[in-house]
Amino acid sequence: MATTILKLNCPDAVGVLARITGRIAAEGGNLLEVSQYTDKTSGWFFARAAVEAGDSAWSPEKFESSFAQLAAELNASWTMRPADRKRRTAILVSKQDHCLVDLLWRWRSGELGLEIPVVISNHPDCRPLVEREGIPYEHVDFCDDKDAAFQRVGEILRANDVELAVLARFMQVLPGWLCREYDARVINIHHSFLPAFVGANPYKRAFERGVKLIGATCHYATEDLDAGPIIEQEVARVEHYHDPDDLVRLGRDCERLALARGVRYHVEDRVLVHGAKAIVFRD
Amino acid sequence: MATTILKLNCPDAVGVLARITGRIAAEGGNLLEVSQYTDKTSGWFFARAAVEAGDSAWSPEKFESSFAQLAAELNASWTMRPADRKRRTAILVSKQDHCLVDLLWRWRSGELGLEIPVVISNHPDCRPLVEREGIPYEHVDFCDDKDAAFQRVGEILRANDVELAVLARFMQVLPGWLCREYDARVINIHHSFLPAFVGANPYKRAFERGVKLIGATCHYATEDLDAGPIIEQEVARVEHYHDPDDLVRLGRDCERLALARGVRYHVEDRVLVHGAKAIVFRD
Amino acid sequence: MATTILKLNCPDAVGVLARITGRIAAEGGNLLEVSQYTDKTSGWFFARAAVEAGDSAWSPEKFESSFAQLAAELNASWTMRPADRKRRTAILVSKQDHCLVDLLWRWRSGELGLEIPVVISNHPDCRPLVEREGIPYEHVDFCDDKDAAFQRVGEILRANDVELAVLARFMQVLPGWLCREYDARVINIHHSFLPAFVGANPYKRAFERGVKLIGATCHYATEDLDAGPIIEQEVARVEHYHDPDDLVRLGRDCERLALARGVRYHVEDRVLVHGAKAIVFRD
Amino acid sequence: MATTILKLNCPDAVGVLARITGRIAAEGGNLLEVSQYTDKTSGWFFARAAVEAGDSAWSPEKFESSFAQLAAELNASWTMRPADRKRRTAILVSKQDHCLVDLLWRWRSGELGLEIPVVISNHPDCRPLVEREGIPYEHVDFCDDKDAAFQRVGEILRANDVELAVLARFMQVLPGWLCREYDARVINIHHSFLPAFVGANPYKRAFERGVKLIGATCHYATEDLDAGPIIEQEVARVEHYHDPDDLVRLGRDCERLALARGVRYHVEDRVLVHGAKAIVFRD
Repeated sequence: MATTILKLNCPDAVGVLARITGRIAAEGGNLLEVSQYTDKTSGWFFARAAVEAGDSAWSPEKFESSFAQLAAELNASWTMRPADRKRRTAILVSKQDHCLVDLLWRWRSGELGLEIPVVISNHPDCRPLVEREGIPYEHVDFCDDKDAAFQRVGEILRANDVELAVLARFMQVLPGWLCREYDARVINIHHSFLPAFVGANPYKRAFERGVKLIGATCHYATEDLDAGPIIEQEVARVEHYHDPDDLVRLGRDCERLALARGVRYHVEDRVLVHGAKAIVFRD
Repeated sequence: MATTILKLNCPDAVGVLARITGRIAAEGGNLLEVSQYTDKTSGWFFARAAVEAGDSAWSPEKFESSFAQLAAELNASWTMRPADRKRRTAILVSKQDHCLVDLLWRWRSGELGLEIPVVISNHPDCRPLVEREGIPYEHVDFCDDKDAAFQRVGEILRANDVELAVLARFMQVLPGWLCREYDARVINIHHSFLPAFVGANPYKRAFERGVKLIGATCHYATEDLDAGPIIEQEVARVEHYHDPDDLVRLGRDCERLALARGVRYHVEDRVLVHGAKAIVFRD
Repeated sequence: MATTILKLNCPDAVGVLARITGRIAAEGGNLLEVSQYTDKTSGWFFARAAVEAGDSAWSPEKFESSFAQLAAELNASWTMRPADRKRRTAILVSKQDHCLVDLLWRWRSGELGLEIPVVISNHPDCRPLVEREGIPYEHVDFCDDKDAAFQRVGEILRANDVELAVLARFMQVLPGWLCREYDARVINIHHSFLPAFVGANPYKRAFERGVKLIGATCHYATEDLDAGPIIEQEVARVEHYHDPDDLVRLGRDCERLALARGVRYHVEDRVLVHGAKAIVFRD
Repeated sequence: MATTILKLNCPDAVGVLARITGRIAAEGGNLLEVSQYTDKTSGWFFARAAVEAGDSAWSPEKFESSFAQLAAELNASWTMRPADRKRRTAILVSKQDHCLVDLLWRWRSGELGLEIPVVISNHPDCRPLVEREGIPYEHVDFCDDKDAAFQRVGEILRANDVELAVLARFMQVLPGWLCREYDARVINIHHSFLPAFVGANPYKRAFERGVKLIGATCHYATEDLDAGPIIEQEVARVEHYHDPDDLVRLGRDCERLALARGVRYHVEDRVLVHGAKAIVFRD
């Protein structure tokens, strides 16, 4: 029997969780898992629930319409979907393929609940890796006209009904209109533990600064580059004898892990964005 | 206004969380934090809630009696207490003082919600460290008659209304009757990442085996030595050039951290024991 | 100009390192990197050096014959090879492909100094993944006659001049003759932080024990199963809500990282086996 | 027999290590441990060696004068000292005592090779903690005249023949003249993983940014605040439910560990400063 995932945020008030869980129980739903967080500063309530049929009265459709009424009373933003519905996801990549290969493996193995209708790149290099998986590869030329190129990216995303775009080391800065159109639905991997080394060449700058840790940050892309809500971070120890090439090599493993986890949390509806921050109910 | 901490476990059923949170709301309580877990294998439900006054109707005493009725209906084991009530804790120590010193500092700084009415030891060595903090130190001689010594330990624990005993590198094996009397209320720190190196001399054996990680395990003491429910573990990387003394040194930091966190989780009512395992709602 | 890697171990004595580095300098070699360790217990000396041409007198061939004399005087076991020579490596796999895919990506990207003349499996499942990389796939049937199957594995290894065999989740226990024939040249990945959960089903047993850490161990295969010298270990935190399937999922990332690092250390001549232990000069 | 620690850096050249180790052997010294690093970018050579008597000819004094000649030939900066000589160390602290208490425990237990002739503070709060260890406590008033206060600090350091000053959460910015006078001999702990959150209130800013990792950085104090060579860093995971007070609490453990390790590396002569970076031969 399919599990239903409910995700919601609303102003906090006495009894919010009781009303939500009460409604689930009243409709015959059985709570498998519930995560909840209240931000006392902003007075905001966040929750995620995994619900399955508890008795024969349960119907996801009936629950959805019943819950819509409650959500309106709570002034809630919310989503509901079957846990096994896969997210239509485009991967954007430049030349470096380590994050792409990792995501493709996790997709193929079923570890990540993705459908991948398309991979988009500003370079032709990764085409063979992608097409051998049976996934269309769209090479968009960014050399001449970046605006036109991003318009083309937007068209491809829309034509493929993309729900999530993953920037898997895509070395182009997204324009504001695209960030807004896919607000909280574009995930980027930055190759430093933000906010350290915002901007270009973080490994080179980490080497010059002599840090003893390097890292990677998975975050939502926003107009303000490298300032979007952070979903996940990973670090690795480095030593004085690691040169910039070593940092790149060691960093790749951080990037792959942080991105894979961040994408997983997103597609499992475990992330709720609130202002500049991401509430992440980790699994 | 004081916060109330509710901890409970019961057989799982449709609507358990709704009934609990509904009762809290009905009594005028505001949920600050709720953690929940359902063990599908055993069909058991676990929860912890932090509740404060939501409106003027709230009274912790009234809520307690109201909740007692619900708990009976749910066949629940449960506890309720003010968040700021400190736990009466005895520390048992032998000669090594690193865990003791760490706990004393965390207690003095207010980081851990403990009262420490007594420190018990089978050696006189740590007396000055303890008495300068204004804490009585009971030296119990274990050389002659271990049974009598443990009887004396039991008397001291009872005379001091001890709710929790922390074995902070106490190098004596507790008898079964004491483990049972303080079931799930004796916390031990073992100097390996259990179940590796169960028993004596784990650092020496880790050195001989050539492991690349050492660690420490914080667990409840049970009759079956080193097999009690695990609350927390910590590891550190080691290299071929670390000799057994280095492992002891590096391991001390693991031991202190794992023990301090485990004690914290316990005194904040974040641990629920279920069979051989500990459900830990980390903070 | 090619770099030469020298690896050696010998009885310790006053001046061993001076004699080695003196000989390198006398032959016109420039030390790029030297790692050294003396095991005081056994009185044994271990070293690795990376040497490049320091002046026009340098010749790797001349140095090798010169060094052979010194090595004989020191009673040393030693190897010397060009740093850029790739190691002929066979990968052995069963059905799970995560370690295989990871190694193939690191091989293709040049991160690991491997040639992979063959992948061997007791199942046909991974054939497409391997053959699309242009690598021959040998399916050996283990159902009927295990002895014959391992004889066949031995033939394939010899026919391909294999220098290193990597058991990338190969679920068959190697016979003693094969371990001896490829002594310290078979690397296995075990899916627990050894010596915890030696043997079968470590994730299931980790779940039942309720550990808060899981891990993976990369070690040389020996006749005494799971007791070979440990090269690398990796751990990940787990929580009470992780079921055995979650542990398998989280463990895969540990396995991939520990195996990739272990293989890297081996092919870069950074590992020296001494009795039950591995000296690893990490990079 | 006492071990001698030699630390040196010089321009790189063919045979540098051979000449150093050769001289050690010629003088009858036995190498217990040698660490070496060559910075190819700057062409600079760094080494640390632990030497004990190898035969009856060995004399540390004779070796020192012999080595001085070689060092002059190599244009080397170098130090030599008995491994068991303790470093005269002043601790500077403000009100927060967690790093101070940790250092005092490690000093008392003998884990750190320190003598502590004095603790200096701009507040009276920590006096009892310090004096009960038999260490003089100098309270210097910084409210009225900071320049005069730092002059007083300088006098105390000089009067106590201090070789190392540890800023254990000392909340005053050192003047340039003091940084220069104790160049590479003042160790600070910054409560973030630098270069993230340079400056004041890093935990508050980490909370506002919504990072998933916090940390601490142990570095040499320089005139350019928070930009000194990094010796050690430590991080801890945080979640959305951790408020700034939680970050402070969790960060304290990072600070204590990073500072204790950094101080250890320094007093064991494992750190060589080169420009903006620290070469650290970890143990």
